[in-house]
Amino acid sequence: MTVVELAGGVGGAKLAEGLAAHLGERLTVVVNTGDDLESYGLAVWPDHDTVAYTLADLDDEERGWGLRGETWTVMERLAALGDDPWFRLGDRDLATHLWRTNLLQTGATPTEVALELRAVLGYAPRILPMADTPVRTEVRTDDGWLEFQDYFVRRRQAPAVHEVRFRDIDAARPTAEVVAALEAADLVVIAPSNPIVSVGPILAVPSMLDLLEGARRRGVAVIAVSGIVGGRALKGPADRMLESLGHGSSAVGVASLYRDVVDALVIDRVDAALAPEIGSLGVRAIVADTIMGDDASRARVAADVIAAGQALRD
Amino acid sequence: MTVVELAGGVGGAKLAEGLAAHLGERLTVVVNTGDDLESYGLAVWPDHDTVAYTLADLDDEERGWGLRGETWTVMERLAALGDDPWFRLGDRDLATHLWRTNLLQTGATPTEVALELRAVLGYAPRILPMADTPVRTEVRTDDGWLEFQDYFVRRRQAPAVHEVRFRDIDAARPTAEVVAALEAADLVVIAPSNPIVSVGPILAVPSMLDLLEGARRRGVAVIAVSGIVGGRALKGPADRMLESLGHGSSAVGVASLYRDVVDALVIDRVDAALAPEIGSLGVRAIVADTIMGDDASRARVAADVIAAGQALRD
Repeated sequence: MTVVELAGGVGGAKLAEGLAAHLGERLTVVVNTGDDLESYGLAVWPDHDTVAYTLADLDDEERGWGLRGETWTVMERLAALGDDPWFRLGDRDLATHLWRTNLLQTGATPTEVALELRAVLGYAPRILPMADTPVRTEVRTDDGWLEFQDYFVRRRQAPAVHEVRFRDIDAARPTAEVVAALEAADLVVIAPSNPIVSVGPILAVPSMLDLLEGARRRGVAVIAVSGIVGGRALKGPADRMLESLGHGSSAVGVASLYRDVVDALVIDRVDAALAPEIGSLGVRAIVADTIMGDDASRARVAADVIAAGQALRD
Repeated sequence: MTVVELAGGVGGAKLAEGLAAHLGERLTVVVNTGDDLESYGLAVWPDHDTVAYTLADLDDEERGWGLRGETWTVMERLAALGDDPWFRLGDRDLATHLWRTNLLQTGATPTEVALELRAVLGYAPRILPMADTPVRTEVRTDDGWLEFQDYFVRRRQAPAVHEVRFRDIDAARPTAEVVAALEAADLVVIAPSNPIVSVGPILAVPSMLDLLEGARRRGVAVIAVSGIVGGRALKGPADRMLESLGHGSSAVGVASLYRDVVDALVIDRVDAALAPEIGSLGVRAIVADTIMGDDASRARVAADVIAAGQALRD
């Protein structure tokens, strides 16, 4: 089975690791680029790198982001120079950004850079940026419109989000590689990432919804995994964001956001009682254990999703 | 006494430290920018930073370049990503380049960035880039035209140099700060740096020679210190370069290059016998101990130069 996963950062990385255990190079991960930023002139791709480091088994599971064995010499020295680097880049991580910026400046596309990193780090799945032109997620808060990482990292997601927009999304297009992957897919999985700011930008790329609709017309299932469990986000501000944007912080809120896009939503056992309400939205609820703490549970959730996709296809 | 020093890297830094011990903020160092480069998208200023780190007492005297206590995590990781970073940037040094690139990208001029680094690192002398527009030194060798750092670092100065040019020098101008410093100077000192590729670019900035000539007309002495001692360069390829370019590898060769620019050349005691030949070029030879191994000898050489400038002025 050939699978495309639409993914943000941590939740997307965990599910990608689980899917990769079954699929290897038959998995393609399409990542959100709306979180990307320029820091010190360097191209920083948080979601892509979280997935890449996880697939390469270089990730720091304890800290929950970045590279194992990371050091912070450069950041400490920047602080000594009077800078306040609120977006902290570890020394080892920084090498990735330098390497990438260098390739981009020599004319490589983001997709080419992503595939080159795969070759260098040696993981089997392909990770594809959702688009090769820059898209930047911005959120309107009580502090006004903020760039995503300003909101997410600098302000620690404290301000309530009232509106979300994806700058330059109109100029973005799914790359040829993304189109080909979706056209070849036997199953499309939406990761348990933030539906608004992680999956939202991917779905907002012009013609992306047509590609998903096209897949479904071919009988290919589109299955999302809810990142809201028991009304709380597994990680990050998705619950508060769903609330402040009027969707409700529950798997039902996730289902209502995805109702036109997906065939089914995998929800956690603790939310089993929500299945009828989700069903009434026209989304099939699939109840499973969805917490992906270790490798075994990641592989198990992935197996459940693959089985559901197979079942829906048959 | 107010002094302007025209300087390249290591030799310029040692003399700057000696001069600073006497002059503090009455010293202005005009540095060569022809060695500057872009590495991984970052603005790297080797000569400026060598002087700055030395004046800030952050320099690694044993290695002879870069910062004390340097680590190499980023470079090691870049190598793991398959890069061959022949221009090696230490982690601590890298912070300077990130900090600088960031300031430049927000619109600061190189001069403003240099003065800001002075404020942050807290040394008294001002270090001024010779110009705010980029100039790039290139050398013609048996391997063809090479960018300076390609020749200097990557090829370890192995190929003979047949010709030197300074790309974009015609568009360069002394900055307002350089002009003001030279107009206010009581003495101009040319450091014992490579006369061709370290001091050469500074003198080649259009109108720089006029500024020096103007100073001399006001009675201000221009005194160079020879970096060639006993026919050998104290550091770097200046001796071979003087030879291959037909000037001869000796203090006489240095004098012949500077004869239209300087009043006097400080030569080492070991070269005392060359004084008459230098004098016949119209350059007064001042014999002194010129080796600047430690702080005391740097201050002593500087004192000799300042005294010579005073004597020539009186």
